[in-house]
Amino acid sequence: MLKGFNYPLTPKGMSTLNPLPPWYYSADFLSIEFWADPAAVRATLPDGLDPDPAADGHATALFYDWQFSGSKEEFLDPARYQYREFFILLDSLFEGRPVAYCPYIFVDNDAALARGWSQGYPKRLGAIFQTRYYAATGKAGPALAAGAKFAGTISAGGQRLAEGLVTLKKPVKDLAGFSERPVVNLLHYPRLAAGMHGKPAIHQLVENVPHDVKIEQAWAGEGNLALPVCKGEELSDLAPRRCGKGIRASMAYIVDDLKTLKQFAVD
Amino acid sequence: MLKGFNYPLTPKGMSTLNPLPPWYYSADFLSIEFWADPAAVRATLPDGLDPDPAADGHATALFYDWQFSGSKEEFLDPARYQYREFFILLDSLFEGRPVAYCPYIFVDNDAALARGWSQGYPKRLGAIFQTRYYAATGKAGPALAAGAKFAGTISAGGQRLAEGLVTLKKPVKDLAGFSERPVVNLLHYPRLAAGMHGKPAIHQLVENVPHDVKIEQAWAGEGNLALPVCKGEELSDLAPRRCGKGIRASMAYIVDDLKTLKQFAVD
Amino acid sequence: MLKGFNYPLTPKGMSTLNPLPPWYYSADFLSIEFWADPAAVRATLPDGLDPDPAADGHATALFYDWQFSGSKEEFLDPARYQYREFFILLDSLFEGRPVAYCPYIFVDNDAALARGWSQGYPKRLGAIFQTRYYAATGKAGPALAAGAKFAGTISAGGQRLAEGLVTLKKPVKDLAGFSERPVVNLLHYPRLAAGMHGKPAIHQLVENVPHDVKIEQAWAGEGNLALPVCKGEELSDLAPRRCGKGIRASMAYIVDDLKTLKQFAVD
Amino acid sequence: MLKGFNYPLTPKGMSTLNPLPPWYYSADFLSIEFWADPAAVRATLPDGLDPDPAADGHATALFYDWQFSGSKEEFLDPARYQYREFFILLDSLFEGRPVAYCPYIFVDNDAALARGWSQGYPKRLGAIFQTRYYAATGKAGPALAAGAKFAGTISAGGQRLAEGLVTLKKPVKDLAGFSERPVVNLLHYPRLAAGMHGKPAIHQLVENVPHDVKIEQAWAGEGNLALPVCKGEELSDLAPRRCGKGIRASMAYIVDDLKTLKQFAVD
Repeated sequence: MLKGFNYPLTPKGMSTLNPLPPWYYSADFLSIEFWADPAAVRATLPDGLDPDPAADGHATALFYDWQFSGSKEEFLDPARYQYREFFILLDSLFEGRPVAYCPYIFVDNDAALARGWSQGYPKRLGAIFQTRYYAATGKAGPALAAGAKFAGTISAGGQRLAEGLVTLKKPVKDLAGFSERPVVNLLHYPRLAAGMHGKPAIHQLVENVPHDVKIEQAWAGEGNLALPVCKGEELSDLAPRRCGKGIRASMAYIVDDLKTLKQFAVD
Repeated sequence: MLKGFNYPLTPKGMSTLNPLPPWYYSADFLSIEFWADPAAVRATLPDGLDPDPAADGHATALFYDWQFSGSKEEFLDPARYQYREFFILLDSLFEGRPVAYCPYIFVDNDAALARGWSQGYPKRLGAIFQTRYYAATGKAGPALAAGAKFAGTISAGGQRLAEGLVTLKKPVKDLAGFSERPVVNLLHYPRLAAGMHGKPAIHQLVENVPHDVKIEQAWAGEGNLALPVCKGEELSDLAPRRCGKGIRASMAYIVDDLKTLKQFAVD
Repeated sequence: MLKGFNYPLTPKGMSTLNPLPPWYYSADFLSIEFWADPAAVRATLPDGLDPDPAADGHATALFYDWQFSGSKEEFLDPARYQYREFFILLDSLFEGRPVAYCPYIFVDNDAALARGWSQGYPKRLGAIFQTRYYAATGKAGPALAAGAKFAGTISAGGQRLAEGLVTLKKPVKDLAGFSERPVVNLLHYPRLAAGMHGKPAIHQLVENVPHDVKIEQAWAGEGNLALPVCKGEELSDLAPRRCGKGIRASMAYIVDDLKTLKQFAVD
Repeated sequence: MLKGFNYPLTPKGMSTLNPLPPWYYSADFLSIEFWADPAAVRATLPDGLDPDPAADGHATALFYDWQFSGSKEEFLDPARYQYREFFILLDSLFEGRPVAYCPYIFVDNDAALARGWSQGYPKRLGAIFQTRYYAATGKAGPALAAGAKFAGTISAGGQRLAEGLVTLKKPVKDLAGFSERPVVNLLHYPRLAAGMHGKPAIHQLVENVPHDVKIEQAWAGEGNLALPVCKGEELSDLAPRRCGKGIRASMAYIVDDLKTLKQFAVD
């Protein structure tokens, strides 16, 4: 029997892109809230999700520097498993319940891309960077202090898709407000068989259910985001009309499950 | 309605990893035949495929420099669509019919990875290079002539997985022998839902049916291949016991279909 | 005695970025002529070079897919020595003699960067791509024929710096007009010693003297070039006012010499 | 007057690889001490440096995750200035004084490569990774605690050149022992002019004089290092006979000077 979770399946299960869940994560991240054109948000939502009338186009842009591990110390092979990520979340409603939908996401690692596809994250490859915090601060390393600045950038296919900036004001004392909306994705797998190109093998709304979420070292302040116009890309249709809070923090969690919310008929 | 073939699905269908088929390809390639340990080949084949008793471990390693296009001149955006590839094909039998099974394949581009997964090619990312032929030859550019050498290398996660060399002897006059075995893949899509990690959503044998195949500038000679032992990788289990013919040629074809040979129950 | 040409110098001379010259090259390239703002060209020329009053801002943008070799079959290690390049040449005069000055150049390989610096080419790293020609043509592979299109793009630091397009009209019969202006560079090596940051150790005008230049498969047509505005970059100051001829061809040559035209006092 | 420190020199000085010093740095790093074959160390030292008879082949391998800035908040452009590094230091003597010589060093960024060359660091490009510490710990993010493991890897040209592992034991209380030996490099700039390939324009021993060095969050424990044999590479000649202390810490410093210790005649 061949072994592995994602491709490839092999005799020993070592070459597979990812070990079996549970999957463990730690990260530093930047989060920037913004308000896009509500009509653009509406146009971007899949069937089954509704615009949140209270949201007025409210969305979040996130830059993550991730470290991944399975159960065999995969964090000791950072060339294969460490990665960076950028994504967008749009406030929306599933059957009246507030959720966040991810229309765009980019990573710089294939294992992360494969895990993402298993969760409905529509990942492409990109070149993602964020300013890092180091215990040894200085002009090259901002402190965790009021006025400190952290930037993030993402490019794909050689085009700059987004630029973000978070300017710290104060530590976050109440972590209750984090991640309040569950992430809902469109899990989708197309069919190449002639005549079936528009009839995917899988097409369903799914809800991510990470657990053991930890947030540390969280600071909040002002966020700024730009989504420049690029050839062959639609992300800029969600360009901010205004920006809001910015956050810089560390996070850890575990992923080993996915909930199907709604299956669409595909034949 | 959101548009796109692979992820992401978006209002205009521009951000998607790939346009709808038909998909057009042109390439230069190196092909090296070799004989692996027949027991290793047998262990690598999925259920539904049988070892070819006449093959004695016969296999092929291929390095491709590809250019891709859909119907909108995507070949004019090489940053997004041009790519390089390495893969292995193992002689095997499907219900007694000679086929070639692809257990390992690497590309350096996400659109190519996504198309591959739609076809059952178990692609990971790698850094792939092959010696190029230029019309302006010299010490840096081998001619298409007896004795000329072309090399290929592939690395993934910073480890060198394969090195190949083709030394030309003479032009290939009879193209009949090319690609005689259809490629059969294991199309596989796992499930992250708790309790279902070993029960994929899709698990089937599929046959690739490219058409309008053109071969040009084909030269044949001697092939050499090394598959070094690497940490966390199984490719070296197929290391050559001996090598055979090497080919260097150009190829073009069209992909717009996929045939399901056998569906495995997945619940 | 340590051995090597560029860094590092080592006991056996194998780890060095480049073997000793002569250096051998083969390539495919796109060449696009354009006219920049003559004032921008003037501002970009170093001391010792004068604007060419007949040029009216005339310049050339070039995309190259290179293969390099020293004398030990380095073309068989394409992971280390194959590379892509983009550069700009500005028509100018050295002591009244027509020359071409290179203010901007990008490659995707460190051996190429090191060779370039030895020649005064002010190379930075970039992601460079050009549409390829394959003997097996099709929708993904343009033929060498009237109307065929070849594109080039270059990005650095995740920003798109240039996009070029060549549309073929007819084969070039008379190769006499190629490369008529010798390339003159500003060879420059700074000093980090305190108080000397503005006093380089080397600062001179040098002339490149490649030999055994071969041009093959040359087609000419229409060229188009865009140099978009990017943060922290000045290349766009040379943005085309209009474009002219485009060329797509193969080239080979040998480099083993460099002529100093003018030394500037540096203390 | 054209502006810039490294290439390219341009009208506004924005496109240059690096701003004028002072240069500011913050980093996380792994340090692994080891003992190489003393004869291999001796063969690797340049003229002017002597083996340290007390060292018995003592050397250090270092993995750095750097953030760089000049005086204009360059740390907010991490796509251009953030980088990773691996290097080796060999204990040796300059006129009887204990120093550390750097024979091999790799980075993944061109600005870092250019600054390095200005300091005599013989940098090549590589793919370098190290396990990160995050404030939010877990199975993917080791704590700063006894038994925690941090790994580093470096590949160049697709070959794995080194693998390191540090297992923490206890915090370092006395920082006096850090960086006790100044780094001495061979500053070298070759000449391409015919007949001068073996007569560099610059060839001198230089001493790095960073200042305002800060070390934070330092933990010490056990170090392990492997330097596998690779084609066309000599680093493995320094393969450890045994390994010693491992350190994981953060560091910051400033670079704005370089001392010339000894000039070699070059004509």
